[in-house]
Amino acid sequence: MSDSQLNDPTLTHAAAHRAHLAALQSGYEVAMQQHDLDAIVLHSGKPKRHFADDQDASFKSHAHFLHWVPMAGLSDSWLVIRPGERPTLYLYAPDDFWHLSPSLPTPDTAPWAEQFEIVHLRKPTLPQRPEGRVALLGEIAELQPQVVSELEALPNPVGLVRQLDEGRVCKSEFEIACLEEASLRAARGHLAARRTFMEGGAELDIQLAYLGASRQRESDVPYGNIVGLNAHAAVLHYQHYALQAPVARHSLLVDAGASVHGYASDITRSWAGDDALPLYRALIEGVEALQKRLIARLAPGVDYVDLHLEMHRELGELLRELGVVSLPAEDQVAQGITAAFCPHGLGHLLGLQVHDVAGRIPDQTTGDIRHPPQGHPMLRLTRVLETGMAITIEPGCYIIPMLLEPLRNDARGEHIDWKLVEALAPHGGVRIEDNLVITTDGALNLTRSPATGL
Amino acid sequence: MSDSQLNDPTLTHAAAHRAHLAALQSGYEVAMQQHDLDAIVLHSGKPKRHFADDQDASFKSHAHFLHWVPMAGLSDSWLVIRPGERPTLYLYAPDDFWHLSPSLPTPDTAPWAEQFEIVHLRKPTLPQRPEGRVALLGEIAELQPQVVSELEALPNPVGLVRQLDEGRVCKSEFEIACLEEASLRAARGHLAARRTFMEGGAELDIQLAYLGASRQRESDVPYGNIVGLNAHAAVLHYQHYALQAPVARHSLLVDAGASVHGYASDITRSWAGDDALPLYRALIEGVEALQKRLIARLAPGVDYVDLHLEMHRELGELLRELGVVSLPAEDQVAQGITAAFCPHGLGHLLGLQVHDVAGRIPDQTTGDIRHPPQGHPMLRLTRVLETGMAITIEPGCYIIPMLLEPLRNDARGEHIDWKLVEALAPHGGVRIEDNLVITTDGALNLTRSPATGL
Repeated sequence: MSDSQLNDPTLTHAAAHRAHLAALQSGYEVAMQQHDLDAIVLHSGKPKRHFADDQDASFKSHAHFLHWVPMAGLSDSWLVIRPGERPTLYLYAPDDFWHLSPSLPTPDTAPWAEQFEIVHLRKPTLPQRPEGRVALLGEIAELQPQVVSELEALPNPVGLVRQLDEGRVCKSEFEIACLEEASLRAARGHLAARRTFMEGGAELDIQLAYLGASRQRESDVPYGNIVGLNAHAAVLHYQHYALQAPVARHSLLVDAGASVHGYASDITRSWAGDDALPLYRALIEGVEALQKRLIARLAPGVDYVDLHLEMHRELGELLRELGVVSLPAEDQVAQGITAAFCPHGLGHLLGLQVHDVAGRIPDQTTGDIRHPPQGHPMLRLTRVLETGMAITIEPGCYIIPMLLEPLRNDARGEHIDWKLVEALAPHGGVRIEDNLVITTDGALNLTRSPATGL
Repeated sequence: MSDSQLNDPTLTHAAAHRAHLAALQSGYEVAMQQHDLDAIVLHSGKPKRHFADDQDASFKSHAHFLHWVPMAGLSDSWLVIRPGERPTLYLYAPDDFWHLSPSLPTPDTAPWAEQFEIVHLRKPTLPQRPEGRVALLGEIAELQPQVVSELEALPNPVGLVRQLDEGRVCKSEFEIACLEEASLRAARGHLAARRTFMEGGAELDIQLAYLGASRQRESDVPYGNIVGLNAHAAVLHYQHYALQAPVARHSLLVDAGASVHGYASDITRSWAGDDALPLYRALIEGVEALQKRLIARLAPGVDYVDLHLEMHRELGELLRELGVVSLPAEDQVAQGITAAFCPHGLGHLLGLQVHDVAGRIPDQTTGDIRHPPQGHPMLRLTRVLETGMAITIEPGCYIIPMLLEPLRNDARGEHIDWKLVEALAPHGGVRIEDNLVITTDGALNLTRSPATGL
């Protein structure tokens, strides 16, 4: 993979990428036939400006565009797909001394360029309108109003978008290579984060060490890195990086990934600090062991909802073993006790978006959404696993006062050792998360490998 | 100033902030009277979501809201101003275990809270509609469509916005303290950036060292830090951080600031590397000397346009002294030669936005925009200086092939030593930028002081 800034068109895995593009072309041709279309136009997106200001917010190229074009961060560009023709890439690269324009891909630097017709746009203009019936995928509100009318295109047809989303669920060999590289980069970050934690760094220092080791800037990570010391580890999507290090060093939770040609990794590790209680260390070990048992069960045909419920049973067992809850695991699950210790889902699809699309759509024909089971509203993936799906497995256990306090005040509270809960509270919680690809007979763990060192 | 994450309501300079709020209230009351209004409602803004994704872009609270409320990063909150009453702050802080909610200001942590009525919003709902004729300042497109109609408010009236923008031009004692602190923080970053450059770091490493020393995350800096090694120093708003260090170390240009309660610093330094030519070192010295001479001329009543033109004359002198251009300075300016070496303006207003509002509006009564002079289209500040204005002074000189090549091909090219131009090209360019506040008899340099070490 390219080891340089975004927008760089260079790419390894050229043969795999060629096969990926050929499969994409076939999938789009089927979709065009089914939806009676002569062309699909994909917009790359454009940065949004802060209100009444001249500065832009951070930007991500649209995922369906990146599915074809390995130039993450490209803006104001277009891709036109037609049956039986090479896709046409209208690549926006202005003559500009204010900014560094993207490099135009050439067969020397980017063999993939040969699979496209490339038109160099020096201004953010429109592509030539394809003949016939055209669909446009893009953020209509951010385009000039006349764009949609000039293109005479159907904007984001629901059935088509659903079908193209579905085409992103099972990953090609090229995509798996990107995801693997993204896990490898993130792993370097996690190891640096742990070192900086052990050396006494503040959350900001840990975050910067992560970025340095994973070779990323903050605006290029696939989601906001979560770097929580002590009780901050209980805030599921904790969004700050405190500037000062706390005196007591109980724990660190880092949930952070990396992006390779737009493909995300999403990895979590929890570390005990010098001031951690043995109970917290046992909780980390217990969550890691149950995570590995869940991973061992991955295979095509496994229902992810069952696996999520199995996580709750396992969590109940662990809480009982540790003496935190005295009820049998099944009763803990039934009474919502494990849900109070772990209110999030077991994981999600992973790809060009960290929570990749179509996680709740089990059937391409009916397209019906399968809702998560009662009591588990946050589960993002409710499908039966298939070969090629990329997923996360991320059990967790947290002391979240807002969720546990209600238990204290009802019959369930009698079964909970509140002294232990209070002893764990300054540690925040534990989450252990790996990235996996479902294979024909199990799963490939992209995160735990000799290469990553995790 | 608070040394913690954003959203933190703590604040030093409490007395100065009280006076700042009192003056703001007076200014708003005059505006309400002139525009026949009974209330002004300010929205703090809300984060924008990436298209077809569940992740948000980076967010900045709206500047007019921050002018009152020192909680940068606050979203989904409102401020209601009425004549003769304390402003009412509807502060959004949900009960949320996914994110860390903002701390509510209390008289203990935040004496400024006593100047407000504070209503705690647990959901991003509307403020109570004030009686009478109401104006709303905010990004209408990002609000629910019914918000504007339920508030029955005039959205962003042009004359009112212009008047409130004007009220931000001259800074209060509190604001100057924030700007000074922002310069101090940025200076620590610049010194760390220089060290990392000298040690052989890549652009990404220099950027991360800057962030670590200035105690900021990337999404909180007031504008995208520019960190350009070698020829990248010639890309005026260079937007990448290359992952690999170049072998030759000619130069580093860093244009980067810091944010304190939303107030920006904006500082540039250029450094010669081990492989720099003496000519480049002389260029840095020359630009720095002319920058200091321009700063010495700052005072109320000075026309910033004249100062910008003086920069061009000075630059012409320097290019002649260095042997790069053989024409007299006046001729270089008249023939557009200095503009090809420095296509940007001398500087701009500075405040809650890095390019602060109202830089081209000289007259509050007529409100007429004063355009920059012919041949200098990028000049952002065309006003006569007044006591309390915060500005930048940032002369530069660059080798930008796109701008210099046309000179080579016409009569002007004969007066240019192209061998020297080509020798300088791998160094990119030079920019030296300080932040200043106009005083009654000169200017206070916030950037060059014993405290900053710059």
